[in-house]
Amino acid sequence: MTTSVELTWVSALRAGLASDMVHDDADTLERHSRDSAPFSPAGTPAVVVTPETAEQVRHVLRVAHAHGVPVVPQGARTGLAGAANADDGCIVLSLLRMNRILEIDRGNRLVRCEPGVTNRGLSDAVAAHGLFFPPDPASWNDCTIGGNIAVGAGGLCCVKYGVTADYVLGLSVVLADGELVRTGRRTVKGVAGYDLTRLFVGSEGTLGVIVEATLSLRPAPGPSLAMLAQFPSATAAGEAVAAIIGRGHVPSALELMDQVTTRAVADVGHPMLSGDAAATLIVECDDRDPAAEVAAIAELCRTAGAVAVTVAADQEESKRVLDARRLVLPALQRQAASLPGRPTAFIEDVAVPRTRLAEFIDRIALIAAEHDLYISTVGHAGDGNLHPTVVFDQADPSAFARAERAYDAIMEAGLALGGTITGEHGVGILKREWLRRELDPGALRIQQGIKNLLDPEGVLNPGKVLA
Amino acid sequence: MTTSVELTWVSALRAGLASDMVHDDADTLERHSRDSAPFSPAGTPAVVVTPETAEQVRHVLRVAHAHGVPVVPQGARTGLAGAANADDGCIVLSLLRMNRILEIDRGNRLVRCEPGVTNRGLSDAVAAHGLFFPPDPASWNDCTIGGNIAVGAGGLCCVKYGVTADYVLGLSVVLADGELVRTGRRTVKGVAGYDLTRLFVGSEGTLGVIVEATLSLRPAPGPSLAMLAQFPSATAAGEAVAAIIGRGHVPSALELMDQVTTRAVADVGHPMLSGDAAATLIVECDDRDPAAEVAAIAELCRTAGAVAVTVAADQEESKRVLDARRLVLPALQRQAASLPGRPTAFIEDVAVPRTRLAEFIDRIALIAAEHDLYISTVGHAGDGNLHPTVVFDQADPSAFARAERAYDAIMEAGLALGGTITGEHGVGILKREWLRRELDPGALRIQQGIKNLLDPEGVLNPGKVLA
Repeated sequence: MTTSVELTWVSALRAGLASDMVHDDADTLERHSRDSAPFSPAGTPAVVVTPETAEQVRHVLRVAHAHGVPVVPQGARTGLAGAANADDGCIVLSLLRMNRILEIDRGNRLVRCEPGVTNRGLSDAVAAHGLFFPPDPASWNDCTIGGNIAVGAGGLCCVKYGVTADYVLGLSVVLADGELVRTGRRTVKGVAGYDLTRLFVGSEGTLGVIVEATLSLRPAPGPSLAMLAQFPSATAAGEAVAAIIGRGHVPSALELMDQVTTRAVADVGHPMLSGDAAATLIVECDDRDPAAEVAAIAELCRTAGAVAVTVAADQEESKRVLDARRLVLPALQRQAASLPGRPTAFIEDVAVPRTRLAEFIDRIALIAAEHDLYISTVGHAGDGNLHPTVVFDQADPSAFARAERAYDAIMEAGLALGGTITGEHGVGILKREWLRRELDPGALRIQQGIKNLLDPEGVLNPGKVLA
Repeated sequence: MTTSVELTWVSALRAGLASDMVHDDADTLERHSRDSAPFSPAGTPAVVVTPETAEQVRHVLRVAHAHGVPVVPQGARTGLAGAANADDGCIVLSLLRMNRILEIDRGNRLVRCEPGVTNRGLSDAVAAHGLFFPPDPASWNDCTIGGNIAVGAGGLCCVKYGVTADYVLGLSVVLADGELVRTGRRTVKGVAGYDLTRLFVGSEGTLGVIVEATLSLRPAPGPSLAMLAQFPSATAAGEAVAAIIGRGHVPSALELMDQVTTRAVADVGHPMLSGDAAATLIVECDDRDPAAEVAAIAELCRTAGAVAVTVAADQEESKRVLDARRLVLPALQRQAASLPGRPTAFIEDVAVPRTRLAEFIDRIALIAAEHDLYISTVGHAGDGNLHPTVVFDQADPSAFARAERAYDAIMEAGLALGGTITGEHGVGILKREWLRRELDPGALRIQQGIKNLLDPEGVLNPGKVLA
């Protein structure tokens, strides 16, 4: 009986899609069962569909809606909150084949594209026209624009250039019942009606499926220069950040590595880094006179007590400075590789008001000690957005439990410091209980109301963001 | 009977407010009946209330909700779309007495304030801390932050610094039934749940009453320099704008005046302006090296065919250049003063993709000729946001009708060029029919659904934005 019911809707799906767009082999189902978040439960989808057009996405939603089958939209599954994890028996709707760039309008500095374009693909394409799409999440090589929009992704450049949301002018979205709606505009400014575009940004596939985006772009920045400063304490590094911001500098990156991270990167052999420092700041400037700006920032770092400051003299050296930041993940993966079982380096994402940065870092160090864990903290200091990363063996039940408790303690500390449980990774499954703690009850009720309004049958990525 | 019912809810209102917070004298009612939009109908409120606290606002909404009385939130009534116009028998809820700045946090570059603070009051207060609140609508001396947020206000600086929405981190909002909810955050970044903050920004008092705002700030910019270029055609000016943007310049103002405006300002005696030019560009730069930047932009203007270019050598001259832009409204008011009856200079607000600017200006000139009207077009060229202004006698039925038809023709032309019916003034009553033409039916239905969700009884500014 169950089988024949399933067959009914799977047949209906197939009727509107090419034969190579409906997959139900065990391997494909398994590969599409989860994103990159280790703590979130994931089921096995009934089918994975890979449409190529908005009309095909509409067909999928119409079938799902008619038969009450959950639909889980997916991009590159680089997400870190379980937002793309499958439910048992769901349709995984992979947007990876909708990867065309539809238009690059240089005069109006905008690009129109499908959701499956990778961040890198888009960035390279617009760069060829002298344009710049700033959002640069760590997974930029693989992650998709649709996913970036769905979670509200960020990156290193946000301190100067803002987040993904700031670049979304308009969207085409397929609603739960298969209707296609367009939001937003092609103009720089516009206030015609409620801001539906922003409502869909960060909604993690729970309100609709993004099938096209119109994104604003910036002119390509000029050459940049970087510098690196090492500090005897997180507090001194925090003071340097406050001074840099306070003096009105707007670096294009302002990254902080705590003691654990500094040592890990020094250990993989970065020549400019001493593993003994308590904190390292990495700053990049792409202003009209980056040499003058990095020099001024270097001076502020020294005044704040930096024990070692390296200012890049040229582009070559600049790259080497920035390598220190790029080496963080490989360094942590090396740490993980020394562990038995199923080691992982899972990246948390909490943001606090900038002035509470040093305090937050110190609290994380205490949490690491308390839970007997290796926690490396790195992050976007200029935005107060930190990524504490626990390196542990997922196969070790004790380590797993301690890591889970540590993540909770970190979010609790972030909220206590006036922060938010997620700066740029989203809520997904991982943080939906924590969302209740962050939001006030009225705001949460409105969010639930909006979900019910747009997805009354609950077919769109059920159980994500809102429990 | 009617009177006694009215007395019931007015008595209930008085029970929770001080005696000087409930006004029903004819003069006060009349003064609060409308904002600054001439074409929109306005009724006479039953009472005007002037609470001083969020609790008092909650009381007003609870009474209104219980008795089904419409509530029209009001700031300084500088709005230009009728969004603050009273309904007959409504409660006008003036937020002008809630005008405290609650906190200026220099380290986190944010300010927390009540809605009745004026834009100028806020700007001055944060400037004293070396900080900068960029949005600068023409009415900045009088208009309130609450009103700025409610309509999504802009100004000259948007080309570089963005619009009001970009600076709203979080809000406290009283909902239709009197519940107080908090949205957003104090951190720079954050993606915890759906973006309710953005939903309230630009909702023109139809979804809730803003009683507190947390706004992000920027460092105060350095000294700026300005320049002015005059062109033989709108097309040449449009080419200059395209070249300036295309070369990656980000001026802090990039304003365009058409032939009519240029002549009007020249006629009031601006020394740098020839009244014969077809278009004038005014550019201000506040980058680290503004002299180099205005020089480069001046060169681009010459290449595009500018017949006269004036580059300010110092701050003094810079002020005189910018005076040409500041003189537009006084010059148009002088034009209006020459008319009999009830003359007005009503400012429209349409945005088109930047590359369609010259075409749009030419179409507006045709519309002026066709309707036998004096239309001056000035605007934020860098954003494609123009303010065609019809100077006419409202007491002359023919002129009134022609002006109304011309405004419709202008919006139609804006939409045909891929634009929007409003860049920064909002929808109010004036443009709610046009909103239906701009939005796709699905998007409009979602907007109506959100309105119903948040205001099921329809007490919050009924008939505004959505018909």
